[in-house]
Amino acid sequence: MMKQIALVSMTLLVFAGGCSRNTIAETYGEDARKIIQATLDKNDAWTKMEELCDGIGYRLSGSPGLEQAVEWAVASMKADGQERVHTETVMVPKWVRGNEWAKMVKPHEYELHMLGLGLSVGTPPNGITAPVVCVKDEKEFEALGDQMKGKIVLFNNPMPEYHPEKGAQYGTAVRFRSRGPRMASEKGALACLVRSVTAYSLRSPHTGATSYDKETPKIPAAAISTEDAAMISRLTARGEEVIVKLKMDAKNHGMVPSANVIGELRGSTRPDEVLVIGGHLDAWDVGHGAHDDAGGCVIAMEAINVLRRLNLIPKRTIRVVLWTNEENGLNGGRQYAKDHADEMPKHIGAIESDSGVFAPKGISVQHRDANIQAIAAKQLEDILQLLEPINANMVKEGWSGADISPMKPAGVVLMGFMVEGSTYFHLHHSHADTLDKVNPDELSRCVAALAVVSYVLADMPGRLGVPSEN
Amino acid sequence: MMKQIALVSMTLLVFAGGCSRNTIAETYGEDARKIIQATLDKNDAWTKMEELCDGIGYRLSGSPGLEQAVEWAVASMKADGQERVHTETVMVPKWVRGNEWAKMVKPHEYELHMLGLGLSVGTPPNGITAPVVCVKDEKEFEALGDQMKGKIVLFNNPMPEYHPEKGAQYGTAVRFRSRGPRMASEKGALACLVRSVTAYSLRSPHTGATSYDKETPKIPAAAISTEDAAMISRLTARGEEVIVKLKMDAKNHGMVPSANVIGELRGSTRPDEVLVIGGHLDAWDVGHGAHDDAGGCVIAMEAINVLRRLNLIPKRTIRVVLWTNEENGLNGGRQYAKDHADEMPKHIGAIESDSGVFAPKGISVQHRDANIQAIAAKQLEDILQLLEPINANMVKEGWSGADISPMKPAGVVLMGFMVEGSTYFHLHHSHADTLDKVNPDELSRCVAALAVVSYVLADMPGRLGVPSEN
Repeated sequence: MMKQIALVSMTLLVFAGGCSRNTIAETYGEDARKIIQATLDKNDAWTKMEELCDGIGYRLSGSPGLEQAVEWAVASMKADGQERVHTETVMVPKWVRGNEWAKMVKPHEYELHMLGLGLSVGTPPNGITAPVVCVKDEKEFEALGDQMKGKIVLFNNPMPEYHPEKGAQYGTAVRFRSRGPRMASEKGALACLVRSVTAYSLRSPHTGATSYDKETPKIPAAAISTEDAAMISRLTARGEEVIVKLKMDAKNHGMVPSANVIGELRGSTRPDEVLVIGGHLDAWDVGHGAHDDAGGCVIAMEAINVLRRLNLIPKRTIRVVLWTNEENGLNGGRQYAKDHADEMPKHIGAIESDSGVFAPKGISVQHRDANIQAIAAKQLEDILQLLEPINANMVKEGWSGADISPMKPAGVVLMGFMVEGSTYFHLHHSHADTLDKVNPDELSRCVAALAVVSYVLADMPGRLGVPSEN
Repeated sequence: MMKQIALVSMTLLVFAGGCSRNTIAETYGEDARKIIQATLDKNDAWTKMEELCDGIGYRLSGSPGLEQAVEWAVASMKADGQERVHTETVMVPKWVRGNEWAKMVKPHEYELHMLGLGLSVGTPPNGITAPVVCVKDEKEFEALGDQMKGKIVLFNNPMPEYHPEKGAQYGTAVRFRSRGPRMASEKGALACLVRSVTAYSLRSPHTGATSYDKETPKIPAAAISTEDAAMISRLTARGEEVIVKLKMDAKNHGMVPSANVIGELRGSTRPDEVLVIGGHLDAWDVGHGAHDDAGGCVIAMEAINVLRRLNLIPKRTIRVVLWTNEENGLNGGRQYAKDHADEMPKHIGAIESDSGVFAPKGISVQHRDANIQAIAAKQLEDILQLLEPINANMVKEGWSGADISPMKPAGVVLMGFMVEGSTYFHLHHSHADTLDKVNPDELSRCVAALAVVSYVLADMPGRLGVPSEN
């Protein structure tokens, strides 16, 4: 099968694309209009968001809130009449932030707005008080060399403004949050501060996972607001000595059980073939993770709810998977791929929504095989014509989602649900990722878009990534 | 004199306007171009901002920071070669925020982002724990009646979005921060929370002064972020009981000495006639008060610095006044008007900049006499033609500044320096009012605009608010 696909010519691709465009439009036009109309008229996504965000609160891995969210998701999908609703155990790290603060003590006393990085070790009980050295990038870091010994290293690398074509460029901007503590530790630093990964701030620190290696000592690491990072850099640039005191009680408590939550809209004729859709149920212990990723969970739950209400039961199964522990471990995604390894060939695709629930834009597709990816992209271009009425018909290639990435080696077609992204990183991993930032109309459009795409992918005669026969 | 002015006809006004337009343009066109060019080429405003904001820190009335700022301003104006640099003692309230926090304890534990309101009393040592009742406006407040007894009242009144013509509408939006604690106390409430006065938030609480009266018990009052206010309102609307614990160590410590700072560019031929320009040196004990109002102080300091460097010495004196205690008392403004009462007839005008140092837009003029105000506005329209190159030629009527308002009864022509205002209240009285929010180019344009207007007003043959003779 794979070899055949690899040999597919561009001519056939274009031809297949042309054919399926007509077929999809003819076959699913009416259903798509019905789904969109019914969803925009009325759906329960906002109520689910209120229950999950306002009603439960923080849901970091290892916290009671996350396990309440697991229970809530099970109860909610059961109440919606979904099938085979169950949990699948996942071991997740229990990292507890504890009390934490940082202040500048020289040249004057000034509270820094900080959040310890996820999985960071804490400071000694009396904190760490040391002069700060600032670096903007790798070049400045290398130039400093021994001057970091015994100091607190601040990585003041600004995230660029959102770019309509390049996007947020998070992948690049996040590098010092991930690697900074290791880099600083190797040079003998006592602690590591990183400028929050955001291009816009109102003194809002943004947390996120960091990592260590085995060779170098684990030093405490925290994000500070962009404002505080900029201020310290201005002071040191003027030749002032800046001394910071950092106090963090953060502690890793080993692994504890959590769970992925699963519910299905069982397929009518080929129920063993599965389209996975979902998001991650865990969130950072700040704000309510409304966009990251309550929204992703809720639009998946509500997408099959809408279809079931309309009695639109596709041939294949649509399986909602709400992963646990995306933020600081990815153990939910890994466990799902492992537990369902035998079933992977029957996974016709997986769609993750983990970029917020702003106005939906379309789908990005990713496959380990570039040819299959291209075929799938072409098919999606045809399918997403059905989403033109809600401006969600954009198809891109090469990106999908973290929780579904462990299914990549098995050859599953991975898809990322794309939304308008200009403000996502203003909120991401911060106290400000709260429900008021979600627009109910945009949320409904996300549900509609995901329901239409899921229904067509689960129902269409051909399989995503496999060229049309005619 | 005043009677004559009141009788001035519209015809004369228009005629005078026409005349002075030519005269001003002819007389001051070259000087204005020179001032603008020199200022945009190079000025010390940014360095002054760094010294005041980054170098000193918090400067609330009664704090060491404010007194350091007073010393800094004296030293800075002396270093610039300004004349008669001195301080004038003002007694100001010493209110200390102390430790403070609030959390929702039911339906789940959730940290609220709060800032105690300035001049608020503290809570008992163990805090106040009580159910919350929400009201949006006066109507909902009145309807609640006795239900507020023994509760924490939350005023969840949203600030409207910035409107290009109506502006920020702060005056209306701020009413519950000012009066809410009194209103709630009258109904037997234990504490008062108000939704932060901002239309945009990243979980950023905004403080500001509140007030009590003598009859009702003083209850603790705090602002919470708009997100937290919205969440509590959603929860109560769904019928959930919301319980909040509020802890505030805030305390009033009576009156302590502070000072207004004064420095002059002495007039060449009529030095006893004075144009006052300035801002307030105090700021809330959060962020660095960069826009509110370090910027207003610095552009005034730098405006006369630019003129002195260019050897443009006007006939009348330009007096920089940096008021203390605008934020929670206005004692600096009151004391200046009192101490200089005899000199008021010689005050040809007063310009306050206290709306941030964004792109300059122009001047708003205010006088106790509507006719004089109209004459002054007409004259300013002519003068501000000189600021067309930097788009700062807008003239409005009816608003000026808080610190200069005590000079209104004496008949001084009051002016407010207007800037682009769409984001000011995102930062106002919050941790986010920091130097990074100031654009150095916009800051320079503010200096240029203020220098040109000040120079012309202090040098022109006629007096602002007095119709031209010809």
